Amino acid sequence: MTERLQELRTRLHEVYDLQMAGAVLRWDQATYMPPGGAAARGRQLALLGTLAHARLTDPAVGRLLDALTPWAETQPYESDDASLVRVARREFEQSNRVPAALVAEMNEHAATSYQAWTEARPANDFARMRPLLERTLDQSRRLADCFPGYACVADPLIDFADYGMKTADIRTLFASLRERLVPLVQAITERPPADDRCLYRHAPQAAQLAFGLELSQSLGYDLERGRQDMTHHPFMTKFSLGDVRITTRVNESDLTDCLFGTLHEAGHAMYEQGIRMDLEGTPLAGGTSSGVHESQSRLWENLVGRSMPFWRHAYPRLLKAFPGTFDDVSVDSFYRAINKVARSLVRTEADEVTYNLHVMIRFDLEVDLLEGRLAVKDLPEAWHARYQSDLGLQAPDDRNGVLQDVHWYAGSIGGQFQGYTLGNILSALFYTAAVKARTGIPDEIAAGHFASLHGWLRDNVYQHGTKFTTAELVERATGGPLSIEPYLAYLWNKYAPLYDLEGAASLSRA
Amino acid sequence: MTERLQELRTRLHEVYDLQMAGAVLRWDQATYMPPGGAAARGRQLALLGTLAHARLTDPAVGRLLDALTPWAETQPYESDDASLVRVARREFEQSNRVPAALVAEMNEHAATSYQAWTEARPANDFARMRPLLERTLDQSRRLADCFPGYACVADPLIDFADYGMKTADIRTLFASLRERLVPLVQAITERPPADDRCLYRHAPQAAQLAFGLELSQSLGYDLERGRQDMTHHPFMTKFSLGDVRITTRVNESDLTDCLFGTLHEAGHAMYEQGIRMDLEGTPLAGGTSSGVHESQSRLWENLVGRSMPFWRHAYPRLLKAFPGTFDDVSVDSFYRAINKVARSLVRTEADEVTYNLHVMIRFDLEVDLLEGRLAVKDLPEAWHARYQSDLGLQAPDDRNGVLQDVHWYAGSIGGQFQGYTLGNILSALFYTAAVKARTGIPDEIAAGHFASLHGWLRDNVYQHGTKFTTAELVERATGGPLSIEPYLAYLWNKYAPLYDLEGAASLSRA
Repeated sequence: MTERLQELRTRLHEVYDLQMAGAVLRWDQATYMPPGGAAARGRQLALLGTLAHARLTDPAVGRLLDALTPWAETQPYESDDASLVRVARREFEQSNRVPAALVAEMNEHAATSYQAWTEARPANDFARMRPLLERTLDQSRRLADCFPGYACVADPLIDFADYGMKTADIRTLFASLRERLVPLVQAITERPPADDRCLYRHAPQAAQLAFGLELSQSLGYDLERGRQDMTHHPFMTKFSLGDVRITTRVNESDLTDCLFGTLHEAGHAMYEQGIRMDLEGTPLAGGTSSGVHESQSRLWENLVGRSMPFWRHAYPRLLKAFPGTFDDVSVDSFYRAINKVARSLVRTEADEVTYNLHVMIRFDLEVDLLEGRLAVKDLPEAWHARYQSDLGLQAPDDRNGVLQDVHWYAGSIGGQFQGYTLGNILSALFYTAAVKARTGIPDEIAAGHFASLHGWLRDNVYQHGTKFTTAELVERATGGPLSIEPYLAYLWNKYAPLYDLEGAASLSRA
Repeated sequence: MTERLQELRTRLHEVYDLQMAGAVLRWDQATYMPPGGAAARGRQLALLGTLAHARLTDPAVGRLLDALTPWAETQPYESDDASLVRVARREFEQSNRVPAALVAEMNEHAATSYQAWTEARPANDFARMRPLLERTLDQSRRLADCFPGYACVADPLIDFADYGMKTADIRTLFASLRERLVPLVQAITERPPADDRCLYRHAPQAAQLAFGLELSQSLGYDLERGRQDMTHHPFMTKFSLGDVRITTRVNESDLTDCLFGTLHEAGHAMYEQGIRMDLEGTPLAGGTSSGVHESQSRLWENLVGRSMPFWRHAYPRLLKAFPGTFDDVSVDSFYRAINKVARSLVRTEADEVTYNLHVMIRFDLEVDLLEGRLAVKDLPEAWHARYQSDLGLQAPDDRNGVLQDVHWYAGSIGGQFQGYTLGNILSALFYTAAVKARTGIPDEIAAGHFASLHGWLRDNVYQHGTKFTTAELVERATGGPLSIEPYLAYLWNKYAPLYDLEGAASLSRA
């Protein structure tokens, strides 16, 4: 068994290294590659992807897994070896069910579609995207059909991102969250709006970059094993557990873009940096699901980074980083500004409270498209209708409507959005459990110390990599099942005083 | 045949793309990778190297080449197809003669040795490098022994870098060059030394980077298909014909490091950017030899970049780029400063005239080591003895002696240095031929126009990639064989007036 396990590890290490090499090429494409490099880069990435896929789906891997599984099942569930065999088996089976030709077809189409979207979005040209999106939808259904026996065609697609979750579970979860969020949004938006004009004062690029990175480092993002670069869309990427990078962007007339974007990506990066180093090179060396990953970006960005304790410590640093710019703004005004709640058209600019409504619209539309209740040609209208009914807003165009998110135009339809709201729910679950276990955390945050919180998250979430499913991880870390209550309590406790909602206290309990 | 040729192309394209992916990873390692990324990066690079090697040496490639060669030999020698088969066959045979185990052993040892050198050089610790260098020497001999039938053990190693050249040819060439250089150096160094103090005035990093890049662009380096980053040691690298990058470094107290380093690397890059785009993805898409590659870096750096016509145009731009810094320095003084000739200890800092003496020392020592006339333990003494006899200087330590160049400590011994002097010789050969064909070139340079020169080089050198050997390329481009006369004439015509050597005119002809 030791020998077989070693052979499995060696084979999987090659897959991992090829994937990581691909990540370097993708990062370079987004950061520094000159325009002339694009054509070859697509080819190079396709080749690395094909080689990784061929190695992962090699029948020899299947034989090793068949031989190892009975033995692994006698080992403790959470042991490295049992977990490796279990997770590798899942990835092997997922990859083996999808024909290489479909993978290649989807990758090629995704590149074409993405390229078209980069032009069609600014041109507000949904008509151009329509046939491409129809093809994406067709491919997505064919991808789902590689996994027969699903209850909903979206289930296999959700499984890729949030293993173990089903469309029906998410629908139920989202419905109960929605029922409580809608009146909260309603109550807040009936109050006088927060004044956030101070956030749009001129702030020089270099100072923004340095300040965001300085804060991220103080949270625990390790630059010996990471770095920051600029891209059009911020992201986190990993080339090994020793090299986990973030990117950010800067708007000199909007401090929040770089600041919270950086904290967000640093949260993702701290998750990856916290994985146990001896899981390196295996399928265990990653985040366990898109929901758990997003929970960490949102936890550091919002529960920490938009909290009053955090700014008690960080605000003087901000005043120093932007000399003279915010001298007339009190920390209280700044705190109100960065937590302004307002109905808006664009998901990525939405506040914490309304954000989930944006996600739910997309989730429902994805499922409707996949299940054939909605045709691509009718998508822009369906989008507008939902924004009207859910947020009371009418987008003036498709650019800020159905064309706003890259997801459907650069991959598949299905499984793309639920992770964002799962992440919000989980961020509060984990944070609440951390504070329960280490009650000094809020005071430490106010003093600029993050080691207790970071340590709890590393011990209970990060170190395990992909060993546990989302549900298992939640159970182990919080002692209970997935629940929306801590998230709703967090929102209530934060926004009730901010918007003077005491009279609407009934909203805090369903 | 068409079908076989297509299959060959497809297979070689994979090799090429894997090599290019490796180049991206190497570039990132040198530019932006945080320290924590090093261990995994070594593994990723080894894997990509192994995969490329396996694909290139695949017996199926050999069968295709066997089937295609008789047909290719009926095609015009310079046709794309015949050249592809010819060059691919050479690379296939070279790669197939070397056991994969030796390649892996050498790569691994090179990484270890390089790592040790980065510490041993500043510590002046040759003793630490000695056993590593002994192993490198042993490996280099074993590598040479994969190609039995050589006249000199260095021949196969030289072949890798400068295909078609033999140790004996280079010895003869270098001896005749040396015979003429030594009295020239002697005559120059008997004259009063040039005053180059103006070069060491403070020049800010950002201005140096921008100015170097601006000049490179005006020469013809295309930033739509390239870019510049900073590294400890400058280099040029290629990820595709559409993405050819350079790196540079900056010393704020020495303008020349960044300025001429950038022009040098831009010269390499213009060669690669000038290769015909339809050779992309084949073994033809590269520089034909280390000598020809170096000829282009040296041509743009020295024959253009250190010439008076060039600075007639560029000097006002320099004054503008560094406001106030050089206002009291005339273009004539600046020209004298950047062309100061002096015996020195460090090759990379040597002037055009003495540079080749440094190269010849290393070339002779390499061959002596390989042929067993010199033991590694005696290398530091042999080094000092040669610097004493050839340059009249005594290095105070090994740091500026035998430890100064990375080459032997990060690869093999043999074939590492001759390209530098071949490059100098060839730079004048090509430049002279270009000016003969397009007599307006010097005037155009003085007006800041480089299109004629660049065009001639593209037509006669760059576009062909690796189609022709060095000797073939020289014959085609200049109408004659490799000769040192144009180079010596160039040196004489430039340095005689600079150092008032008219009285020593006999030096201009042997």
